Amino acid sequence: MPIISSSYIREVAIRALARAGIPAHHAEIQLDVLLEAELRGVPSHGLLRLDRVVQRIANGVADPHATGRHYWRSSGFLSVDGERGLGPVVAIAALDALQKRASEVGVAIAGITNSNHLGMLGWYAERVAARGQSIIAMSTSEALVHPWGARKALIGTNPISIGVPTEGEPFVMDTATSVVSMGEIHDHAHRRASIPSHWALDAAGNPTTDPNEAKKGALAPFGGAKGYALGLAIELLVSSLAGAAIGTDVRGTLDATEVCNKGDVFIVIDGPHTRLSAYLDMIRSSEPAHGFDGALVPGDRARECRKQRLEHGLPVAEEVWERLLTLAGIDSAVQQHHH
Amino acid sequence: MPIISSSYIREVAIRALARAGIPAHHAEIQLDVLLEAELRGVPSHGLLRLDRVVQRIANGVADPHATGRHYWRSSGFLSVDGERGLGPVVAIAALDALQKRASEVGVAIAGITNSNHLGMLGWYAERVAARGQSIIAMSTSEALVHPWGARKALIGTNPISIGVPTEGEPFVMDTATSVVSMGEIHDHAHRRASIPSHWALDAAGNPTTDPNEAKKGALAPFGGAKGYALGLAIELLVSSLAGAAIGTDVRGTLDATEVCNKGDVFIVIDGPHTRLSAYLDMIRSSEPAHGFDGALVPGDRARECRKQRLEHGLPVAEEVWERLLTLAGIDSAVQQHHH
Repeated sequence: MPIISSSYIREVAIRALARAGIPAHHAEIQLDVLLEAELRGVPSHGLLRLDRVVQRIANGVADPHATGRHYWRSSGFLSVDGERGLGPVVAIAALDALQKRASEVGVAIAGITNSNHLGMLGWYAERVAARGQSIIAMSTSEALVHPWGARKALIGTNPISIGVPTEGEPFVMDTATSVVSMGEIHDHAHRRASIPSHWALDAAGNPTTDPNEAKKGALAPFGGAKGYALGLAIELLVSSLAGAAIGTDVRGTLDATEVCNKGDVFIVIDGPHTRLSAYLDMIRSSEPAHGFDGALVPGDRARECRKQRLEHGLPVAEEVWERLLTLAGIDSAVQQHHH
Repeated sequence: MPIISSSYIREVAIRALARAGIPAHHAEIQLDVLLEAELRGVPSHGLLRLDRVVQRIANGVADPHATGRHYWRSSGFLSVDGERGLGPVVAIAALDALQKRASEVGVAIAGITNSNHLGMLGWYAERVAARGQSIIAMSTSEALVHPWGARKALIGTNPISIGVPTEGEPFVMDTATSVVSMGEIHDHAHRRASIPSHWALDAAGNPTTDPNEAKKGALAPFGGAKGYALGLAIELLVSSLAGAAIGTDVRGTLDATEVCNKGDVFIVIDGPHTRLSAYLDMIRSSEPAHGFDGALVPGDRARECRKQRLEHGLPVAEEVWERLLTLAGIDSAVQQHHH
């Protein structure tokens, strides 16, 4: 894999997004969430997705100019019609409004629909928590997860991210409610590797180690019945509060052609602070369990990875990089010379 | 186990609570959450706990009269000093205020500390959702759970409950973020039964099947690293927003003598509704996975259990029932004749 500097990726990607007709400020936001995913070692939510963003604009199912229409149902509840805008652009506009309102009201909530894929939820949570407010963020997605005890994919991978300010770096956790992402399954299929049997069921409802059978079946919820209950609660809460589609009616989170009707919910809280860092350090330095190196606080590994990659560059999959250059209108032979 | 009618249990328990000096209205609330746990088949959060409530009052660490002092930090954020009141009494007073405020503001949040154990969180979520509002409820507890990768108990069992109104019965999920409760470990120890090796670590950080070793060690978070991240997020969010103690500083959730310094956070949301029942019915009737009978929606089993037990009576552990009669000042020999 080519190792490329963060600044050069940014330059190329911004050119690609400009060529797709995205206004400069919107391009910065869209790129930032993708590039930050790469920096943190989460390529499934990274530059891989840039091509689809461009295609969705070309296909008229994403509008690069829209920031979303805001309607305050009450002083603390913001309903957002995303107007098919880019997910991060619509989300940031909503979060800016929420953060301002939360600083007055103490708490504010947004339900967003008719927007596009947000990318990594933790990026939004970190932004809010770094500014001194707490956040609970939840999204739905196309149904890929089976209910605990059933075989069909009826529930989204429904991520939840929680951000809390501390005296130092904000605490951010961010997890899908499936055991793994469908991207992980595709990656194993691509590499002809088998998968652990608790990751997915095949179409007949049996645990499978074959990623190609898993693709025809359904992902397992994480943590069995408990993770299922959490993922389902997110499905209901988001569908209800955002006025978004539900279950197998959700479309447009995995392809380049369908209007996206999933939902996002953000709850921003402006509350009192207590000191949390000493507690987090106690966790970091506590004795390891047998067979482990000790505990990390969620976000630690990503933060370390980001630091390394900002300094030394990022590995980007060859085909992702080639595609990016093409989208940017850069001849890759010339680029190699230039680079 | 004796099978006793719900109405007779109520009569005896109310007498016991009155003798402990609890005002009638507060006794009704405290009993309701415990009795509803028994009716739903969750005895770990049931009548077993009534004795400790009475003892905590006798020891001066619970005040049966207090309903909590309310301070609105802003129009949507309620800080509650529970004044050592009974957990359910303080929580219901806070929820009533939140529900009213949420109907005006759209969303309202409470952080509660200096209150006592709430019992089953789902009871509160169901109450709110049955009145047409959504809720996210979270509590902390004494540290019993190890961080993923470490061996010491540094995190509470930190339950989360989410309630969402539907056209029919409200949706309610309610789960601790540990694999099982410590009550479950004690129950296995009592019955000299072994436990599955993924439930807990012993004091040396090794997985154990011996419940007595588990008692000296730590419970596992549910769902590995993901459940750990969620439980830790709840620890930070609740400690921060409620101004409550954190980690190993949390006291008074398991004994009869220490002032309770854990926290509770409720977020009540007055949002738009969509139709959810058809989707939930689709889950209930979807094809089973291999080796399962199909999926249930969280709350289904409890609802069925409640119906049966209201009709036919409840099994109550002999020693729990004897203790309840004693607390009520009823001679158990006479009672058997009477009953």
